[in-house]
Amino acid sequence: MTDKLTKAERETDLAPLLQNGWSLADGRDAIAKTFVFKDFVEAFGFMTRAALHAEKLNHHPEWSNVYKTVEVVLTTHDADGLSAKDVDLAKRMDALA
Amino acid sequence: MTDKLTKAERETDLAPLLQNGWSLADGRDAIAKTFVFKDFVEAFGFMTRAALHAEKLNHHPEWSNVYKTVEVVLTTHDADGLSAKDVDLAKRMDALA
Repeated sequence: MTDKLTKAERETDLAPLLQNGWSLADGRDAIAKTFVFKDFVEAFGFMTRAALHAEKLNHHPEWSNVYKTVEVVLTTHDADGLSAKDVDLAKRMDALA
Repeated sequence: MTDKLTKAERETDLAPLLQNGWSLADGRDAIAKTFVFKDFVEAFGFMTRAALHAEKLNHHPEWSNVYKTVEVVLTTHDADGLSAKDVDLAKRMDALA
């Protein structure tokens, strides 16, 4: 079982993400962001690098890709909501994009 | 502009795909299939191989991934519906999966 973010952690850890293009998802405790790249090669290149990080963290995104756009949703199933793992993966994705 | 599949081509080319797990999408002239793998590494490995084919064909899927599941939708925007490119990419994806 993974711990959900506390109220204090949401203020310190989640707030910076929400100011950097992430938004709270509708109807679930999750964050979402749409990344737009130059073309498919750039978009899928981002996904490939993010996939390696996700596998290493053993924490995987829900994501979709249409040509140069990648939509990402992060949540932690075994926490039934947002955890520190989502903050970590979100930061890595921002650094990669 | 890419030509849409003719009625005859739908019978010869699309029918075998529809018997192999592909289905016609709701509300648009597109085909969809859900691929389920052993784990994320297998699922993303499939996506990576399919991405290389897609880029070579200059024809890209709409797709989403959640852990070991990959949902694919194929259609041809500049044909405003299904074309031979979708049949080609669908066959390659089936061969890769």
